[in-house]
Amino acid sequence: MTFRAPVRDIAFSLRHAAGFERLAGAFPDADSDTVEAVLEGAGALAGDILAPLNRQGDLVGATLENGVVRAAPGFGQAYRQFAEGGWNSLAADPDHGGQGLPKSLEIGVFEMVHAANMAFGLCPMLTLGAIEALAHHGSDHQRALYLPRLVSGEWTGTMNLTEPQSGSDLGTITTLATPDGDGGWSITGQKIYITWGDHDVADNIVHLVLARTPDAPPGVKGISLFLAPKVLVEADGTLGAANALRAGGLEHKLGIHGSPTCVMLFEGAKAELVGQLGSGLAHMFTMMNAARLQVGTQGVAIAERAYQQALAFSLERRQGRSAWTGEASARLFDHPDVRRTLMLMKARIEAARGICLSTAVAADLASHGATEADRSAARLREELLTPIAKAWSTDIGVEVASQGVQIHGGMGFIEETGAAQHYRDARIAPIYEGTNGIQAIDLVGRKLSLGEGQAIGDLMDDMRDTIDALNAAGDPAFGTLARRLETALDAASAATAWLIERRARAMPDALSGATAYLKLLGDVVGGWMLAKGALAASAAIAAGEGDAGWLGTKLALARIYAETVLAQVPGQAAGVTLGAADLAATTPEMLGA
Amino acid sequence: MTFRAPVRDIAFSLRHAAGFERLAGAFPDADSDTVEAVLEGAGALAGDILAPLNRQGDLVGATLENGVVRAAPGFGQAYRQFAEGGWNSLAADPDHGGQGLPKSLEIGVFEMVHAANMAFGLCPMLTLGAIEALAHHGSDHQRALYLPRLVSGEWTGTMNLTEPQSGSDLGTITTLATPDGDGGWSITGQKIYITWGDHDVADNIVHLVLARTPDAPPGVKGISLFLAPKVLVEADGTLGAANALRAGGLEHKLGIHGSPTCVMLFEGAKAELVGQLGSGLAHMFTMMNAARLQVGTQGVAIAERAYQQALAFSLERRQGRSAWTGEASARLFDHPDVRRTLMLMKARIEAARGICLSTAVAADLASHGATEADRSAARLREELLTPIAKAWSTDIGVEVASQGVQIHGGMGFIEETGAAQHYRDARIAPIYEGTNGIQAIDLVGRKLSLGEGQAIGDLMDDMRDTIDALNAAGDPAFGTLARRLETALDAASAATAWLIERRARAMPDALSGATAYLKLLGDVVGGWMLAKGALAASAAIAAGEGDAGWLGTKLALARIYAETVLAQVPGQAAGVTLGAADLAATTPEMLGA
Repeated sequence: MTFRAPVRDIAFSLRHAAGFERLAGAFPDADSDTVEAVLEGAGALAGDILAPLNRQGDLVGATLENGVVRAAPGFGQAYRQFAEGGWNSLAADPDHGGQGLPKSLEIGVFEMVHAANMAFGLCPMLTLGAIEALAHHGSDHQRALYLPRLVSGEWTGTMNLTEPQSGSDLGTITTLATPDGDGGWSITGQKIYITWGDHDVADNIVHLVLARTPDAPPGVKGISLFLAPKVLVEADGTLGAANALRAGGLEHKLGIHGSPTCVMLFEGAKAELVGQLGSGLAHMFTMMNAARLQVGTQGVAIAERAYQQALAFSLERRQGRSAWTGEASARLFDHPDVRRTLMLMKARIEAARGICLSTAVAADLASHGATEADRSAARLREELLTPIAKAWSTDIGVEVASQGVQIHGGMGFIEETGAAQHYRDARIAPIYEGTNGIQAIDLVGRKLSLGEGQAIGDLMDDMRDTIDALNAAGDPAFGTLARRLETALDAASAATAWLIERRARAMPDALSGATAYLKLLGDVVGGWMLAKGALAASAAIAAGEGDAGWLGTKLALARIYAETVLAQVPGQAAGVTLGAADLAATTPEMLGA
Repeated sequence: MTFRAPVRDIAFSLRHAAGFERLAGAFPDADSDTVEAVLEGAGALAGDILAPLNRQGDLVGATLENGVVRAAPGFGQAYRQFAEGGWNSLAADPDHGGQGLPKSLEIGVFEMVHAANMAFGLCPMLTLGAIEALAHHGSDHQRALYLPRLVSGEWTGTMNLTEPQSGSDLGTITTLATPDGDGGWSITGQKIYITWGDHDVADNIVHLVLARTPDAPPGVKGISLFLAPKVLVEADGTLGAANALRAGGLEHKLGIHGSPTCVMLFEGAKAELVGQLGSGLAHMFTMMNAARLQVGTQGVAIAERAYQQALAFSLERRQGRSAWTGEASARLFDHPDVRRTLMLMKARIEAARGICLSTAVAADLASHGATEADRSAARLREELLTPIAKAWSTDIGVEVASQGVQIHGGMGFIEETGAAQHYRDARIAPIYEGTNGIQAIDLVGRKLSLGEGQAIGDLMDDMRDTIDALNAAGDPAFGTLARRLETALDAASAATAWLIERRARAMPDALSGATAYLKLLGDVVGGWMLAKGALAASAAIAAGEGDAGWLGTKLALARIYAETVLAQVPGQAAGVTLGAADLAATTPEMLGA
């Protein structure tokens, strides 16, 4: 099963759903030719190099032999091609060897990388996080020493956060960093679930490690961020001795077998402090937003991959009589129920893609907007959309991958077919980088009050503007899209108001509806993305520009989404505003424990 | 992770959701003491014998060595305990050594068997199918020779239907049966996906095989049902020579590794005709309803198992501050979002359990009702509910298993935890015994017209009666249950009317909404099941009978289901009545192919 990079769809979504043109001033090089060329190049890499390794990565996986982690077959060479092609440095600062392109374009590129081979994509994804953290919080020396080699991809990076007792609640970590008497630090402790924590595809690994310092206050304020390289680095950048850290084990996981998930043992490892003592968690959150958006993009990616495979299968497999044509042994595609499922899969993928790329454009504007007001508004938007991009898109990833298995029928359950791998791989994305439950709590507990409510208010206003534009354009091809979106938005507004009111005096009520609210708001924002695409498609068709069939599909997908997903939004509000009284009254024993 | 058989919940659902007391006349032995004793006994077997083998079954699986399939470790001994305990013969006719108990009680028992070890449960489940087919269509000689040994569990049975080109569309099978000149038949062909097609846990395997006969008409009318034993059986029942059939391979599957899924090669195998020449498919459908209900029960079962594991984990794992108590490092259970998720999981499980047990009670009444009118009405109910029981419950199975993984956080993705196995095992149930898409087509294409609409009309009437009863009882503890159920039922009625109207003149429109309709109707019927339970719980509480906390939870689950699932039903109607115009206008190329 080959992977076809959806370059045209991504470019369309970047432009029309995410508003990429607003970056023109800040990124003059990122014109549409460049965008297309970059996406085409990445698409070729993804399709030709990375996708063919995906099944072997699953079957063989990474292995730990004699204390050394070996990447899955072919991953090392592919990684070198990835780095040499400059794919690691797209959005990095030119001062550190980067190409200075927008992060939103990088997200478009990484969607294709993750779709082709999600286990592979995690390696550079973690490196990007380390680059982000060091660029913001590293000393001049650290930036000069580490960033060029991370940006080039010569070295890779990791995030060492989780410990056995400390997952969602990082305030409880116990890994200890003590001064080594030489101006540096010595780290001792165990970290788990460390993605690409050890491997043989690059010369060195820059571990960013959260640790507690002696005499530090308890809780999050006692946690600092440290850098501990796998191989010690001399002042001139050459590699020295091995550091006192190692992979103590590899997890046996449901999916992403090609990504080594390590137990990391720090046994008095030499380390440097990054940023301020006691600010470790805050510094780590710098990379967290970007990482969460990347994970949301993995949801889109795995859904796209699963969708393509299901579509291809539906065109090959013949079974039963078509209700349309009466043909016996018709293609699955020619059964209405199957075609509806495929189109719903694609509609949700395009909605999620729009959300992720919009979040990325907001991040670009937050750092590169022309005015402080622009940057500030964009930062609010990025902060608000990030939990939705992460959670809604990864839920889509699991659901679409499951539908992909289903369309294959019995063959979907057979591992050789490949559909099952997507179902397994997709399942991690709602979990890592903050579970989707944590995202929902973040949305309700923190993001609704951002800018004293300006963040959510601005979003609602922007969505109303699109409804006005739909009504003004008045293309009958929109169907009931405007009405469905408006009714859904009204429900979202009411649910939001309830949460804001309730949050102030009865947090359990608000939190009990957090997941339902994130789903509801994501459904609406996703519909907004498709609506913006529909407006653009309608205008292009009216102007006689572009591929009318492909543009018409954007309209059809928006209509189908409106009648299925958006039509169900008002009914979801009751679940948001249900409150926690029944929960509070329920004991484990009453639930069968 | 131990499994606790939910005996009390199953007994409650049998009685109050499924109306088990209506069987009192036909099954005088099945009094409540007997029901409880049977469920307790099966629960002990499931928890003590079958559940502990589940993980080994997954890890080691069944193996094919030198042409012989060996069951997973411990499965052979467990199977013998199962058979010796009489669990295979519960609902079989006493004439063949059965215990003559209701099938609905058997379904309650098998829910626990599948929950404990779904891969194991498939072996006796297929045997029950073979018993059903032979009891209905076998000759006196076949029944005398095979049934006692199948009922006792000494031998097991299989269904050989699928071929590589022929899955959902059995009219295209090519396996050939030719007269052997000796009064018997000789079968040649390849069958795939044959569950427990070969193994070493019993002395013989009775294969029921669909095959085409020479000169038979094309399509389904040319297909007949044959019996081909693994080991030939002498007239006195003793075993003779090996038959010319074998397992040619085992599938490498996503889950249920403990269940050998075989490619079966028939190489001139000696066989007997079962029933009428050319009626093979019709005869096979005799066992299909029962098998579909069993698979629906697997959905309930795997959801129950995943729920129990998630609940247990939520009580052990401590992470973050509780919004209720303010306690740091609170149990996951003490976070509102997690508790809501757990209660929604349980509410959907109880809804699905009610649907499956109601279908089973209808099946019992269809065969044992006092009058022909009773039997006929029950048969309609069984036929109507079967696709819902199969598809809705297995979709619940996948979703609840996925939520179970999610509640475990990172540990959910690690195979050692066991949550991931449920997610993998659950995925087959929406596929086999007719994909859930096929179930939806069956519901819309066939079941809505059953009894010229009487089947669906009676169901709607019964649901209205329950709404009336809720209103009459007027317990404030029902919350808005009556109103939510009524609004949902109105939406279901309208969607049903649209489908019946559209089916007559535009089948693609109707079929394009089939899956959405099955989901909608299942949501309503599930709510009805919980409402009946709520009525019973309310009455018991008012009478001061039973465990008030446990009964109160029945009410709480019904309320939560009403505000989350039922509240979303009206919004789903638009998806049912959307029509197929956009689908018909969409080509593969327009979707990216």
